[in-house]
This record gives sequence, structure tokens and C-alpha cells, in this order.
Amino acid sequence: MSKALVVLSGGQDSTTCLYWAIKEFGHENVSSLTFDYGQRHRVEITAAKKVAEIAAIGHAILPIDTFKVLGGNALVDDRPVVDSSEQDTQLPNTFVPGRNLVFLTFAAAYAYQRNIEHLITGVAQTDYSGYPDCRENTLSSLEQTLRLGMEYTVTIHTPLMNLSKADTVTMANKLGAMDAMAYTHTCYNGAQPPCGHCQACQLRAKGFAEAQCADPLVERFAFFSHNHPE
Amino acid sequence: MSKALVVLSGGQDSTTCLYWAIKEFGHENVSSLTFDYGQRHRVEITAAKKVAEIAAIGHAILPIDTFKVLGGNALVDDRPVVDSSEQDTQLPNTFVPGRNLVFLTFAAAYAYQRNIEHLITGVAQTDYSGYPDCRENTLSSLEQTLRLGMEYTVTIHTPLMNLSKADTVTMANKLGAMDAMAYTHTCYNGAQPPCGHCQACQLRAKGFAEAQCADPLVERFAFFSHNHPE
Repeated sequence: MSKALVVLSGGQDSTTCLYWAIKEFGHENVSSLTFDYGQRHRVEITAAKKVAEIAAIGHAILPIDTFKVLGGNALVDDRPVVDSSEQDTQLPNTFVPGRNLVFLTFAAAYAYQRNIEHLITGVAQTDYSGYPDCRENTLSSLEQTLRLGMEYTVTIHTPLMNLSKADTVTMANKLGAMDAMAYTHTCYNGAQPPCGHCQACQLRAKGFAEAQCADPLVERFAFFSHNHPE
Repeated sequence: MSKALVVLSGGQDSTTCLYWAIKEFGHENVSSLTFDYGQRHRVEITAAKKVAEIAAIGHAILPIDTFKVLGGNALVDDRPVVDSSEQDTQLPNTFVPGRNLVFLTFAAAYAYQRNIEHLITGVAQTDYSGYPDCRENTLSSLEQTLRLGMEYTVTIHTPLMNLSKADTVTMANKLGAMDAMAYTHTCYNGAQPPCGHCQACQLRAKGFAEAQCADPLVERFAFFSHNHPE
């Protein structure tokens, strides 16, 4: 049986993908990988660990220190005697494009070392994702690049690519992902319980509402606050 | 005028490419980038700095801590309670494929932030390079992936792709790269002066011999030992 690696961010989409992979490839053939790339909120990594633990799936964490440097102003810059380039006097744009390309390339390298031929990522080109490195045509092209550049037949699966948030919630529910879903992280503000106000929280709430499903994350904290009144 | 970024390793090929880029794009439009990815020999980074300094070209160093972890046995591994995957009991292959894909993706991200549309890399599919991520078809596919994934028209230039080592030496000579060439690093053993025995040293020597050109690196150390006898 083929082996599969899920890129697990600790959010609701990658968690849904983890359960999709378990169903598709069999529990014993699935493992998961989280990148520690200087996320604003460490709670995302904690969430990924907890999700893998609940799903009882192998989980590794791989560091990438590059994005933090590229996205900040702390780039080690070794200027020569003559600083001739016009661009050097301009402040760089701190937006780092292509993050998903790097994640999947490192995931493929990790998979190659372990004879894993299937990568699963929770990207979607619907709803909120305007990132070009999450689109179907980009990922098809990347798959081809990885196959050529690593000489192995890796396949990138994107089970949520064309689903709405509500569709994803319905899928997660059917796949039995709700126990793990209670520990996923979504809030842009890194708040626990989630702030409920940020764009990410509102999008998540809308998806659950449209799928007519209670969010186990919200329920977990509601239970907590009910039993531990201030 | 278009701006160009040279991926500078500190070796003879990327140094030749730096001078190629200066000729092609104009000195004021060229900058250079070196990756600090846990090279076995730190002397490579020192060489890159020195080359950029001699060429009087802006030079930045970008860290990547991921390869060292992927290539070793120090991967942070966060195992769940149930360790169910068969592959987890096998030692991973420590060869990390696709290094060049990562370098060029990060270079493109760095370039994007600075409105640089041309990337130059010294890879060659002739002579010794058997790496699939250095081949022409891989880099064409990667270029397409980067264009789609970052939504900008980046072009990857590989001026040495089909040249022999001797051709590269001849090109470097014509481009006036020999002052910088004296400070490049090639030796697999990280030795200074170069050991002369390893595969890299021998390939370099063969290239210079076939091009009927003295290696300024060898001459620099010969001069040194002549004037500083032990």
C-alpha cells in the first residue's frame, strides 16, 4: 500500500485532510509533518501536535528559519565596499511569496527519504485563499517540478481545493474528524478561546453555520467556561 | 533596465555567473545572494563574501536551517502515543533531494521583494552534475511553477548549463573574473590551499588545464608559500 504524508498546520483544513488521508490510504500508511517557520502564534504547532495525537498518527516537526528573515528587516546583509545597486537603498517588501512552494518542496524531500509517494495539503482556491501558490495550476506545475527535480513519482493531493468552508466542515464531520477539530487553531489573534471577531474566526463560524454543524472548538471552551466560572 | 540576482555559492561556477550577469545586465543592476544552509565548510561562505567584494556587488546571506535537520538524524520528532506507521521504524535516507529547487524558490522570493526579475544560477548538466534538480527540464518547470506561484515573470538563467568545465574557465577568463576566481572555493575537503586530490580539486584542475589557463587560486597559494617558506 502507498504511503502518504499530510502537511499539518494545526488548522481545520489540514486536520480534515489528515482524516481524508487516513480513509484514503489506511491509518497505518499515514504520517504528518508540521513546519516550524516562525509562526506568529506558537499555539498553531501545539494544535498540530494535539491533532496528530488524537488521530494517533506519526508527527514530525521541521524547522525553517528562512521566512522569518525574509519577512523581517533582520536579513543578514553583508555589504561590500562599493554599494552600487539602486535597489539596496530601497526598503524591501516584507511580504514573502511562495511559502507553500517551499513547504511542499521540503515535504517532498522528507517524503523521498522515507519512500512516501503521496503528499496531502489542505490548500483551497475557494473562499478566502487568494494566494497564487495555493491554486490548482501552481500545484500541478510544482508536482511536475518535484518529479523532475527529485526523480520520483510524488503526487500532490489537494482534497479541499474546490470546496467551500461549509463543504469542508461537512467532509470533516463525515470523516470523524470532530474530536481532533476541537483542538485545531484558527484565530488570527492567537487567542484561546478564539476571539470570534477576526476574519479567520468569522470565516470558520460561517462555515460551521452553513454546514449546520456545531464547532467542537467553540463547544470545548463553552464547556470549560461553564465549569470554571470566573 | 532589468535587475538580476546571482545565487553565489563561492565556487568557480557561480563566480563565473556573477561576471556573466554584470556583462549582461550592467554592474549597477546586479546583486548576489548566498545561502547559509549548514555547509560542511564555512570557507564557502567566506569565499562568496570575498568574491562579491572583489566584484563590488551587493551581497546578502540568507539562512536555511532545514537541510541540516533533514540530512541528519536530529529531526525534531514528536511521536504520538500510538506509533502506528511502519516507516517510523526505518532509518530515513539522509540524502536530501531538491536542494536546488529550494535555493531558487527562496531566491525568487527574495527577488520578488526587490522587483528583481532575473535569477542566475551556475548549475550545469555536463561534467559531474548528475543531480536532477540541476537539469534544464527541471529548471524550466521550476521557472513556470515560480511564475504561477508568485504571479511575477521571473526568469531563471543558467549560462553554464551545457558548458564543460574548460568552457566555463574560458568564459570566466574572457569576462575578467580571474581576480575573483583566486578566492573561490572548490575543495571537498575544505582545505586552503586546496588539497589537490579530491574529485572537486581534480575536476577544477582538469578544466583549467584543458582551457590552457593557470588557476589563480593555485597561483595565489603558490605565491604565498613562496614568500612565506616554512
